[in-house]
Amino acid sequence: MKKVISVCGSDGDDAELSDYALQVAEDVGRLVARKGAVLACGGHGGVMQAACKGAKEENGITLGIMPYAKDEANEYIDIAIPTTIGNVRNFLVANAGDAVIAIGGRWGTLNEISYAMISGKPLILIKGTGGCVDKIIDIHLMQNIESKYYIAGSAEEAVEKAFEL
Amino acid sequence: MKKVISVCGSDGDDAELSDYALQVAEDVGRLVARKGAVLACGGHGGVMQAACKGAKEENGITLGIMPYAKDEANEYIDIAIPTTIGNVRNFLVANAGDAVIAIGGRWGTLNEISYAMISGKPLILIKGTGGCVDKIIDIHLMQNIESKYYIAGSAEEAVEKAFEL
Amino acid sequence: MKKVISVCGSDGDDAELSDYALQVAEDVGRLVARKGAVLACGGHGGVMQAACKGAKEENGITLGIMPYAKDEANEYIDIAIPTTIGNVRNFLVANAGDAVIAIGGRWGTLNEISYAMISGKPLILIKGTGGCVDKIIDIHLMQNIESKYYIAGSAEEAVEKAFEL
Amino acid sequence: MKKVISVCGSDGDDAELSDYALQVAEDVGRLVARKGAVLACGGHGGVMQAACKGAKEENGITLGIMPYAKDEANEYIDIAIPTTIGNVRNFLVANAGDAVIAIGGRWGTLNEISYAMISGKPLILIKGTGGCVDKIIDIHLMQNIESKYYIAGSAEEAVEKAFEL
Repeated sequence: MKKVISVCGSDGDDAELSDYALQVAEDVGRLVARKGAVLACGGHGGVMQAACKGAKEENGITLGIMPYAKDEANEYIDIAIPTTIGNVRNFLVANAGDAVIAIGGRWGTLNEISYAMISGKPLILIKGTGGCVDKIIDIHLMQNIESKYYIAGSAEEAVEKAFEL
Repeated sequence: MKKVISVCGSDGDDAELSDYALQVAEDVGRLVARKGAVLACGGHGGVMQAACKGAKEENGITLGIMPYAKDEANEYIDIAIPTTIGNVRNFLVANAGDAVIAIGGRWGTLNEISYAMISGKPLILIKGTGGCVDKIIDIHLMQNIESKYYIAGSAEEAVEKAFEL
Repeated sequence: MKKVISVCGSDGDDAELSDYALQVAEDVGRLVARKGAVLACGGHGGVMQAACKGAKEENGITLGIMPYAKDEANEYIDIAIPTTIGNVRNFLVANAGDAVIAIGGRWGTLNEISYAMISGKPLILIKGTGGCVDKIIDIHLMQNIESKYYIAGSAEEAVEKAFEL
Repeated sequence: MKKVISVCGSDGDDAELSDYALQVAEDVGRLVARKGAVLACGGHGGVMQAACKGAKEENGITLGIMPYAKDEANEYIDIAIPTTIGNVRNFLVANAGDAVIAIGGRWGTLNEISYAMISGKPLILIKGTGGCVDKIIDIHLMQNIESKYYIAGSAEEAVEKAFEL
């Protein structure tokens, strides 16, 4: 059975999504694929698309857990699962991975992060990618309550951590 | 059709859940019932139980959206819906209400809060009740991104707001 | 805590839905309410609406588990839960009841019936109401496999059975 | 993007599951893989395992949509998605495929079949594989109501049909 790493973060319409966050996402995708794991995500644009792009550059397999239909998938998705349940599908993105890596993000990403935490799923936040991820790191949000998240300084550190946990 | 107000917040095992938060929850339950609305929640203890207790003191109707089975419901639940899907049921708690009121809370509450925000559901956070609610208020977490939440200083203000929105 | 009985059956657009089936549904609603139980259903028209109408004539409480939004609810629904997950909400209709009563119905009803059976939920099919219910009865479909369903000849017998199980 | 074909049918504990049905399932898996499509299923034994075995013999990719956890997956699953929602995951099995092929089966399979029908998903039933599939074929169960299913006489015909639709 293959290892699966889930990546969550902002969709392409997030005006505050930085080039750095997108670069980190692409690097994460590349590293996950190089290690032979499947990259899972919500199948949309932004961070999700960048991670898938990276994974495909290394001939990885990408899995998109779509809110509704297959035609919403970004161009780097190999296997799209149309769930028909909209944003409720976030729990599946968090569940699909053996570990979850979060990059930037808004309320939808926070929804996936919180789901990972209540499920006891290993979660790695990448510092410096902005959005809710940096906010959580800055205030040590509920660190040590119920579950523990890990903070990584780079794509390399995040993927290494994801495979250790 | 009846108005429904959802209340979310920590379960009874949260060591940091304050007496003040529980009192606020009970007051919210009482005020929601007095206005003739149904009180919906996750059906468990802590904030959920206190809100249900308040609602029953005013002869309100209480709806518990249970993770698994009916026998997990607190003693003040009138109608328990056993969902069998565990914490995934959080989206139903956020959806059930015409507005969502959050009190204290940990990652599960944050999961419901984030779901309310991505669904565009009116959300009221009660200041001073601790947990993730006060953390979100303190750092103005993603206020004005996608959706907007409201901050209330008391149970009265929260319920008033919930009926206005 | 209140007892809850779920009723499932065709929506109002089913051309083969008979007046008899609708009458049975209304009678079931009336009897469920008279016994003080909550009537749960998918919140739409046809069998669901008839059952709710009956329940309201006896001042019962009706719960509609809606595919998407509250405004889809029939006029006899007291508490509408907007699930946002479309037909996937069928599992919640089957789960909500302490017993499930099926009347007529097409593939959606069969979806709820099959869900009740795999969940071990008591299921009563009312003979003579047409649709998938009579088809299942006629061929003894998978009776005694995994779970067992009950066959009732009338609304009275069905509701009695639902409260016994 | 890859084509995905979902296969549903009895788990390994079905005493009435025939060797013929298992052979058909294995052939379906083999043919799906040969055509370069991903084989999706509920990840368990019986029909699901046989189909995955066939797909792996042809170096296909197999996707298991698990009720709870990854460790429930049969030995031929490449990518296991742990959903944590038990049998409710059936809707995801039906959704995942561009077409659904049903072989034998009990109430769980009927749950997936009925979900495919209400979703308008192309559904192929393989005649002679027993269980609910043959019962549906025998009585022409609700054929032409809402959606239409196809009947195939062999694994070859079923897979051909699945790729045409």
